[in-house]
Amino acid sequence: MPELRKDPIVGRWVIISTERAKRPFDFAPEEETAKGGFCPFDSGNEKTTPPEIIAYRPTGTGPNTSGWTLRVVANKFPALVIEGGLGKVGEGLYDKMNGIGAHEVIIETPDHAETLSNMPLDRFVDVLRAYRDRIVDLSKDPRFRYILIFKNQGRSAGASLEHSHSQLIALPVVPEIASEELNGSKKYFSYKDRCVYCDILRQEMEQKNRVISENEDFLVCAPFAPRSPFEVWIIPKSHNADYTQITEYQFRALAEIFSETLRRLDKALNKRPYNFMLHTSPVKENHQEYYHWHFEVVPKLTRIAGFEWGSGFYINPTPPEDAAKFLRDVSLAEGS
Amino acid sequence: MPELRKDPIVGRWVIISTERAKRPFDFAPEEETAKGGFCPFDSGNEKTTPPEIIAYRPTGTGPNTSGWTLRVVANKFPALVIEGGLGKVGEGLYDKMNGIGAHEVIIETPDHAETLSNMPLDRFVDVLRAYRDRIVDLSKDPRFRYILIFKNQGRSAGASLEHSHSQLIALPVVPEIASEELNGSKKYFSYKDRCVYCDILRQEMEQKNRVISENEDFLVCAPFAPRSPFEVWIIPKSHNADYTQITEYQFRALAEIFSETLRRLDKALNKRPYNFMLHTSPVKENHQEYYHWHFEVVPKLTRIAGFEWGSGFYINPTPPEDAAKFLRDVSLAEGS
Repeated sequence: MPELRKDPIVGRWVIISTERAKRPFDFAPEEETAKGGFCPFDSGNEKTTPPEIIAYRPTGTGPNTSGWTLRVVANKFPALVIEGGLGKVGEGLYDKMNGIGAHEVIIETPDHAETLSNMPLDRFVDVLRAYRDRIVDLSKDPRFRYILIFKNQGRSAGASLEHSHSQLIALPVVPEIASEELNGSKKYFSYKDRCVYCDILRQEMEQKNRVISENEDFLVCAPFAPRSPFEVWIIPKSHNADYTQITEYQFRALAEIFSETLRRLDKALNKRPYNFMLHTSPVKENHQEYYHWHFEVVPKLTRIAGFEWGSGFYINPTPPEDAAKFLRDVSLAEGS
Repeated sequence: MPELRKDPIVGRWVIISTERAKRPFDFAPEEETAKGGFCPFDSGNEKTTPPEIIAYRPTGTGPNTSGWTLRVVANKFPALVIEGGLGKVGEGLYDKMNGIGAHEVIIETPDHAETLSNMPLDRFVDVLRAYRDRIVDLSKDPRFRYILIFKNQGRSAGASLEHSHSQLIALPVVPEIASEELNGSKKYFSYKDRCVYCDILRQEMEQKNRVISENEDFLVCAPFAPRSPFEVWIIPKSHNADYTQITEYQFRALAEIFSETLRRLDKALNKRPYNFMLHTSPVKENHQEYYHWHFEVVPKLTRIAGFEWGSGFYINPTPPEDAAKFLRDVSLAEGS
């Protein structure tokens, strides 16, 4: 059983895998992306993944057969296990609990060559819808406090399979960055009586120099103090703490601008790996007044992350105003 | 002039380089370590670095000539600039200031082939002494609040030159991890009236399963909730918040156990890259009651840091008890 352990000084929770524990020689030096070969996520290979939890497929096709356009399956090598109680316990001054949680894979496409950047818009909407559907479903489990949705695109961003997919981790604790954002935005609200993200939206739309694009419902901008070059935030213009409250209309507007943003990044950075994460409210907690859901997209460009994540201290060689200008100026015309 | 910018939600400061700004095509994919060729840190090449700030060298040898055993020079490509006022200013809801600070390189050896793992003990003591001497000197500058000492060993850990060196960054703000540790240990102290690190020392020495080695003055252990496989902490057994209070006797004891720890890691992990950082009290602030200086050593083994530093959520595939056992069991005999 994996364990969730809390750092006694800063309160950060980490997952410790106690099965399949890696020994020194299990850490091979970095390799290039393995291309080609058998892919368990391809259409036709449904039997080689764990059974589907949900799938978007035409009526008449049976589960775990081809015909689907999106499948969600359990991760074959989960960081957490779904069965069991939390078993919260102390060990002297330390706190730990069982590594209970869900670890799922959202297979975004049946087509090995398709990515979020080049799939039809309706299908991007389906990916965003799958995120919502899985959060809604897993929120019913009384053990879970946070559902983390993220994507690793490209090997050096952590993707172990090339086929386009996102991941979901349901956790019995709130991860550090979410806690920090909740605390920070609550503090801002208690002082100003306004949502900090709404204030950011207003200022960015006025200043314009960090704006990359916008539509009626979403603003895409480089944040004022990005940790990483070409970091991009996608923020809904209307205030809401909780992604699951997204409307049908917003789904389409988000898919449009998200797809465009990924194509801008692909063009500007020559398809370098990236990570994105959905930042949304913890489940079963009401942060509606002061929190504001959004996506953060972080291209993997610099190699100094090792030191930086250890110190919490970031040196960003690209001012966000410059990054925004580069991304704004990308030509998205076909064939250019 | 580089800028220090504060994230308006979580309060994290980052350095934005506004000169030599990197554009998309400046981020080359990762390359292997460039070996051989001219090295500005080698003995005899003193004129090719910025002039030395301090050096340990025999009397009779002039500054910036050979004969030295350790030199500290300004970083040729500094992230911060030393001249100027802080110029703290708001930009709407955002806070920023000039990127004022020191960025220095501690050249640990004149010998290109020597590393902290294989240098004579007296010389390792000198490296530790140089850290202390530079912190003491830079603390006198009224603009600085934190002096960050760290080492990137190996290209994928962020080292741009192969020659063994550490770095120092003096900052007008306290970096995030230091703030978190200060806040966390203060909270623990206010509840328990004891230092959390002293309590950790007591529990680790009793439990023994995460202890790697110890001597009279220092304990080396794997932390209870490590973010990274084979993460190692070196903690002084006597309570002190401030590294600059270290005694001559402790210098030697620290050099002994630090050198041994690096040799254990080199053997167990086949000389994989690593980062280490000195965690010490901010300057001009009194955290003596509850904070406790220490070193954290983090081997660079996993590639998933991109996502993890973005989410604050860590999955560690190696339990610290296993890591400690591997490192304890390393044979340090010559030639083995």
